[in-house]
Amino acid sequence: MIAEIITIGDEILIGQIVDTNSAWIGQQLNLNGIRVKQISSVSDDKEHIVKALKEAEGRADVILITGGLGPTKDDITKKTLADYFNVGLIEHLETVEMVRDFFAKRGKELTELNRKQAEVLENCRVILNHNGTAPGMWIEQNNKIYVSMPGVPFEMKAMVDDYVIPQLKKQFDLPFIYHKTVLTNGIGESFLAERIEKWEDSLVANEIKLAYLPSPGMVKLRLTTYGKNEADLKAKVEKAIEQLTPIISEYIYGYEEYGKEPDQLEKLVADLLLSKKKTLSLAESCTGGYISHLITSIAGSSAFYQGGVVPYHNQFKHNLLGVSNDVFEKHGAVSEECVKAMALGVKEKFHSDYSIAVSGIAGPTGGSDDKPVGTVWIAVANDSGVVAERFQFGTDRNRNIRMTALASLNKLRKMIIEE
Amino acid sequence: MIAEIITIGDEILIGQIVDTNSAWIGQQLNLNGIRVKQISSVSDDKEHIVKALKEAEGRADVILITGGLGPTKDDITKKTLADYFNVGLIEHLETVEMVRDFFAKRGKELTELNRKQAEVLENCRVILNHNGTAPGMWIEQNNKIYVSMPGVPFEMKAMVDDYVIPQLKKQFDLPFIYHKTVLTNGIGESFLAERIEKWEDSLVANEIKLAYLPSPGMVKLRLTTYGKNEADLKAKVEKAIEQLTPIISEYIYGYEEYGKEPDQLEKLVADLLLSKKKTLSLAESCTGGYISHLITSIAGSSAFYQGGVVPYHNQFKHNLLGVSNDVFEKHGAVSEECVKAMALGVKEKFHSDYSIAVSGIAGPTGGSDDKPVGTVWIAVANDSGVVAERFQFGTDRNRNIRMTALASLNKLRKMIIEE
Repeated sequence: MIAEIITIGDEILIGQIVDTNSAWIGQQLNLNGIRVKQISSVSDDKEHIVKALKEAEGRADVILITGGLGPTKDDITKKTLADYFNVGLIEHLETVEMVRDFFAKRGKELTELNRKQAEVLENCRVILNHNGTAPGMWIEQNNKIYVSMPGVPFEMKAMVDDYVIPQLKKQFDLPFIYHKTVLTNGIGESFLAERIEKWEDSLVANEIKLAYLPSPGMVKLRLTTYGKNEADLKAKVEKAIEQLTPIISEYIYGYEEYGKEPDQLEKLVADLLLSKKKTLSLAESCTGGYISHLITSIAGSSAFYQGGVVPYHNQFKHNLLGVSNDVFEKHGAVSEECVKAMALGVKEKFHSDYSIAVSGIAGPTGGSDDKPVGTVWIAVANDSGVVAERFQFGTDRNRNIRMTALASLNKLRKMIIEE
Repeated sequence: MIAEIITIGDEILIGQIVDTNSAWIGQQLNLNGIRVKQISSVSDDKEHIVKALKEAEGRADVILITGGLGPTKDDITKKTLADYFNVGLIEHLETVEMVRDFFAKRGKELTELNRKQAEVLENCRVILNHNGTAPGMWIEQNNKIYVSMPGVPFEMKAMVDDYVIPQLKKQFDLPFIYHKTVLTNGIGESFLAERIEKWEDSLVANEIKLAYLPSPGMVKLRLTTYGKNEADLKAKVEKAIEQLTPIISEYIYGYEEYGKEPDQLEKLVADLLLSKKKTLSLAESCTGGYISHLITSIAGSSAFYQGGVVPYHNQFKHNLLGVSNDVFEKHGAVSEECVKAMALGVKEKFHSDYSIAVSGIAGPTGGSDDKPVGTVWIAVANDSGVVAERFQFGTDRNRNIRMTALASLNKLRKMIIEE
């Protein structure tokens, strides 16, 4: 089965926003054995949208459309689709109630403009929007399927996950595609490639495709295989991962599989702490609260997270965490001695079972010959003591923050597991 | 003049990479008065590329193509273009030398496969690649211009900047496009639309196009106009913004203009604090360190940021910030009394001139009838005292965190300005 994606909106064409929606949709379709033939981004212009629809129809069985469903005057997708299919718009009562409720919860009344959001094409099945006001629409005509969704990513994603993919699976006999992704932290792409070269060569005979997906602080290795029998495909990939594991075991922290939440370092740490009924506190200098943000992005983190401090100057490392002024004078704030004292100090302050402390030079300035930009000390503590390690990251401030956070969480994860 | 962008490569269609090239090219063309009509991402497939070229020709004067120029077998752009224009390939001597040099610098010899990179279409002008091995090609045929470039972003960008844009400016009398975007916080898209409806209607007469660009915690209003005279267009847009300002002044926090860094709330707050030589501290409960992360993402933030605490439980709000246990009993942690005490407590602890404190129910659970999920109290303090406000956001945890952070920063910004 072939699909096409049409994203509507001038903001994409003038480069004001990067179209991440199509990449995400492409990924989801691909994972489910649906090939995406073309992605087209077109302007908020009726004639142009119609032309794109016609062209897509000539190539694809399913046409997914995002954007242009807002309540404002520049959003014309709905009107254009109605004309295209030569149907009228009707008010969808369930959606009216959802929109009314949406605004009521925010202490606001339903306006005429908002009520218009509940209008849908006569010939559609409505895809309810549980995260916003514009409903999605599923239209079947001339043996083709058209799906219109809002451009707001989290509204669109929920519709694809909860409705579009399950519906397509129900209506079509899709081939099996099996992917599993190995997640690594602590080794760069080219070093990884060298280390697993022989293993990688062996994949060809098994018809497994390998992709390297690098991002700051991690490299993902995605294994893909196609076929008729799901169990066979899965067994083949699992065997390949079994052969890979001893070669790079110290770098693997988790996996990503379709239909499962991908492993995330913060989530792995959270699950370990929850299962052991242990608590955590954080003392962050160079990461400035980013590790705390990752941890508290997890719903339910208050069950194990006690809290943290961001002592952005030495005096507060001293006042709040009891780091002795001697340490700053003899070793500086970016040192083994400092992060160890911070980790012990915050652990005591928050009565936690574990703690992480980081101190480093995030950049772009502030480096020296022996501590260049990207130098970071990380300490993790438990009831038996504290250990620290020096890392050397790059020159980009925000990449350094991200890489420090992931390395810290991985260090804590290993500490908890190895106990 | 109308342009289209075609990006070639399966990795885009399966969502393995997000196509940032087209957004960047769109921006550059737009800045120079060239309208992008459509962006198409197509597969590494000859027939499909030819079809995309034909369709683009029907709409555009200039067709910019990226990708598919690598040395591996799946990169077939060059061969397809040669067949499309019915011309042969010839070796470009200057490029052979550049490629040889490229590999020599990396201690490698020129292979047969790499030598093929130096082949170009007979009917093209070569665009030298100073950053990689695949040359670009500029082809003029049937009154249309085709530009083929590599997909590697930094190789492509250098070609666009150094060759493509200057060449287009030389060959065409380009109109000017002027955009300015008004950034708002604190009002939803539909309420904004209602409030500025009359003003929006008045834009038509001035040939200004308006776009609403919503994202969590903000709505951007983009004004666009085309014409011959840069100064006139700018004046027209500035006048429209002048008329808009009194209608929604309390929501506008900044602007976005091409060629300038867009205003960001955290950066605006940072600049205000730096210019006044004042300092800041943060006490974050429901945002869990995210505001601190935004602030410390700014290089040089240590000049004004003292630090923060994330007291994720009442006992630490008490121990670290001195919030009286009475407050929790009488009002709860999500209350005016609590955030005010937190703001004053953290300000004192970190000897700062300003502070922000937030406490709320980020969700997805933890709400009650009078304090549903999304209820957030925000306090900002200065030397004269502390003020607090209650907000009601939605049900998505991470959106609530983002919205709380932006509302807090805007509240502080207003406090500093209004002093």
